[in-house]
Amino acid sequence: MPTQIAVLLFDRFTALDAVGPYEMLCRLPDTEVVFVAERTGPVPNDRDELNLVATRTFEEVTAPDIVVVPGGPGQDGQMDNEALLEWLRTVDATSTWTTSVCTGSLLLAAAGLLKGREATSHWLALDELKRLGAEPTGRRVVTDGKYVTAAGVSSGIDMGLTLVGRLAGEEHAQAVQLLTEYDPRPPYDAGSPEKAPAHLVEEFRTGGRFISR
Amino acid sequence: MPTQIAVLLFDRFTALDAVGPYEMLCRLPDTEVVFVAERTGPVPNDRDELNLVATRTFEEVTAPDIVVVPGGPGQDGQMDNEALLEWLRTVDATSTWTTSVCTGSLLLAAAGLLKGREATSHWLALDELKRLGAEPTGRRVVTDGKYVTAAGVSSGIDMGLTLVGRLAGEEHAQAVQLLTEYDPRPPYDAGSPEKAPAHLVEEFRTGGRFISR
Repeated sequence: MPTQIAVLLFDRFTALDAVGPYEMLCRLPDTEVVFVAERTGPVPNDRDELNLVATRTFEEVTAPDIVVVPGGPGQDGQMDNEALLEWLRTVDATSTWTTSVCTGSLLLAAAGLLKGREATSHWLALDELKRLGAEPTGRRVVTDGKYVTAAGVSSGIDMGLTLVGRLAGEEHAQAVQLLTEYDPRPPYDAGSPEKAPAHLVEEFRTGGRFISR
Repeated sequence: MPTQIAVLLFDRFTALDAVGPYEMLCRLPDTEVVFVAERTGPVPNDRDELNLVATRTFEEVTAPDIVVVPGGPGQDGQMDNEALLEWLRTVDATSTWTTSVCTGSLLLAAAGLLKGREATSHWLALDELKRLGAEPTGRRVVTDGKYVTAAGVSSGIDMGLTLVGRLAGEEHAQAVQLLTEYDPRPPYDAGSPEKAPAHLVEEFRTGGRFISR
């Protein structure tokens, strides 16, 4: 039996949250990845212009080895979706690894899975993560037991590659990194609230800056 | 009129090649992104397990401002697809920027658009890029006139953010970087043939190492 990796989709997810870790984890040896949602079919992203297809329903995927929960503006609308939260609890009961990117960790927390655990989320969501019972840290990838949570959007790539190393060894992970040419060179150094210009951080915190999503 | 960004899709593209730059470029001010293929509907990726939906046909998108051409194993099967190559020539005639990620540059070259131009591609495809008439460089993001080509898979994120800076200024690009928390921390330092263990580079070059795609 191949390792089954289930990537959760829901309306208004952020595409890179799902595709970043996918592109690393799918290169584990003998792996099958399924995209899971309440219903099969196209699932629109946070701008309603990119659609990823869910190929399986919650009922069809009950025991994946690895669970990946992306975030995005749509996370907010899922916090009371009992069908989704119940699916998270069901698959978590037998998963080897339960993971999230960005505000996906808020869904894991809402499902009661991160109580008292070290975890992370998008930097703008760390306070809410704490309110939901987790112990937020500012680290980019946080592992606590079988729970691996990543910070905002692009951090899922680092999470995915970290997990590839844990599961398949350093050499395989390095081969995946080389094949995907993951040698990042951001043209600026503003990727975290500690590094970005302070006024940008403040504007996002107070809602004074709006970037279309 | 919003800036129109057209992301090309074709069977067996690599998902991160398309979604990486998408997640940066979509946050340009007043932008519309369309996913374009020969036919509308789900387009399967290189592992036939992830499907991105093409929402527009070639006929429906004739004058985008920015063109993004992903790569992937499926590029090979498109090198003689006159409908696709002709679409590239058509949209390039009026585009402000024509861009590619990974082996997407081979498609631009096959369409005759990179003749004598500095360009890049996946590190394993630089020789073929040269055969097709471009001047390959080992840099991660290469700009020559309105042509911006990026190296393998994950480099499209750097390409996208670079272009955001060119089009909307450094402050906006830094805001996008902060919002997507693009502060990469790869757990290994093997993301380029210069940095990876030499035996891995050799094994990929000779076909001795195979990672499922």
